[in-house]
Amino acid sequence: MNAQNSTDILAAHLPLAHALADEARILALRLFRTRLDVAIKADDSPVTLADREIEAALRRRLAAACPAHGIFGEEQGRQHLDAEYVWVIDPIDGTKSFITGSPLWGTLLALLHKGRPVLGMMDIPFTGERWWAVAGEPARYQGEPARSSDCAALATARLYATSPDVFTGEDQARFARVSAAVALRRFGGDCYSYGLLASGHVDLVVEAGLQPYDYLALVNIIEGAGGVVSDWQGQPLGLGSDGRVVAAATPALHAEALALLGA
Amino acid sequence: MNAQNSTDILAAHLPLAHALADEARILALRLFRTRLDVAIKADDSPVTLADREIEAALRRRLAAACPAHGIFGEEQGRQHLDAEYVWVIDPIDGTKSFITGSPLWGTLLALLHKGRPVLGMMDIPFTGERWWAVAGEPARYQGEPARSSDCAALATARLYATSPDVFTGEDQARFARVSAAVALRRFGGDCYSYGLLASGHVDLVVEAGLQPYDYLALVNIIEGAGGVVSDWQGQPLGLGSDGRVVAAATPALHAEALALLGA
Repeated sequence: MNAQNSTDILAAHLPLAHALADEARILALRLFRTRLDVAIKADDSPVTLADREIEAALRRRLAAACPAHGIFGEEQGRQHLDAEYVWVIDPIDGTKSFITGSPLWGTLLALLHKGRPVLGMMDIPFTGERWWAVAGEPARYQGEPARSSDCAALATARLYATSPDVFTGEDQARFARVSAAVALRRFGGDCYSYGLLASGHVDLVVEAGLQPYDYLALVNIIEGAGGVVSDWQGQPLGLGSDGRVVAAATPALHAEALALLGA
Repeated sequence: MNAQNSTDILAAHLPLAHALADEARILALRLFRTRLDVAIKADDSPVTLADREIEAALRRRLAAACPAHGIFGEEQGRQHLDAEYVWVIDPIDGTKSFITGSPLWGTLLALLHKGRPVLGMMDIPFTGERWWAVAGEPARYQGEPARSSDCAALATARLYATSPDVFTGEDQARFARVSAAVALRRFGGDCYSYGLLASGHVDLVVEAGLQPYDYLALVNIIEGAGGVVSDWQGQPLGLGSDGRVVAAATPALHAEALALLGA
């Protein structure tokens, strides 16, 4: 992406993304820690009323602001994915955290241009934190530039994953190899872990079983902070990725993690 | 404890506990997410400058306010544990969270009277949340009464534990039995999980490898919210407990968890 494109996107779509996140934050906090009739789906991903309300509200706003754009949301599916621009929405990433009152859930918004992420935003309503980035620009946390750490080796790396339960079959052994090689590992966090990586507090995040709306918003944030993010084979993340994600603070750390995760 | 004792403690020591937590909050937030020269101890419990500074400050304040009281702190050890009243302090519970920038760490304060917890307080600086309770009184969250859920069966319970890594040897299998029986399990949180239980968002917390300063502050909070907390044999928690803790929203749920954890 050249500078002109980057500037165009910033001018046209970043304020819209902030407005979407602002609206999602209000709706989410209105329902957080209230008693809900929570449905637990067969795939063990709990869905809340907040999820559905937020996505519906964001879709209404997008339909008004940019009707030609496609939308891919967690709750209400795919619409015009062949459009030049496609918004990818996870109204509440970390629904298990949300329904258990834990603060580290967030709203994820990505904008794809011809299939590649060009804008990513992660808003954490309860703590009032927000990370975002436009492709080719520095990532931002609360408006200030965010920078990943300079950790270049697994032996000194701080590793996060949402839960050991996301790794099945051979992935368990691969994750165990990485876990055994790092200085510290910690579970929990969902999207929040990637924000911590972008801000230099965590060095490595490894996950599996993710959906495009779980990871596409994070690509520009990680890259704009100086980090590297890909699937476990080192391929760029897109709508067709297999849901296995590795994000690292530096290219050297990413390469070392890939050697244990890939193939 | 009778009502007179309870009232005395409330009058004399609760304001002091709030003052201690206020001071700890300021000191902790000053150091949170700054670059520290973090020492990782051989036992894998990272210690930060914040830990040491906070405990020293609280000890100075306690020495001035109640010099006859004993103190048991994480960092600077035991002092007059034979006193009638003993304060038990964990300056930063969740040091792994703290050093990785994650918000769910807190300061834990317990006051023991003749070895039994009579006052407990948990302060979460980053989110500005505080739970506390005096023995025989309702637990409080942000000043309002906190109440645990009415969940009475593992099959519908939401389970939290800080990490699968705290369970070793036979404890792994016991924890796995409980995990397999619940509706949802989630890792992360340290002390915060017990606050979520006291406020009715989580139903069960199971942990092992804890120290007295990790759990004594939670006893009055859990009990004052209507829950039950004990070791894995169902015995009350005290300075001499073995570090295995089970906290449940109701007596029925506690009994069901004990049947899988005990013996």
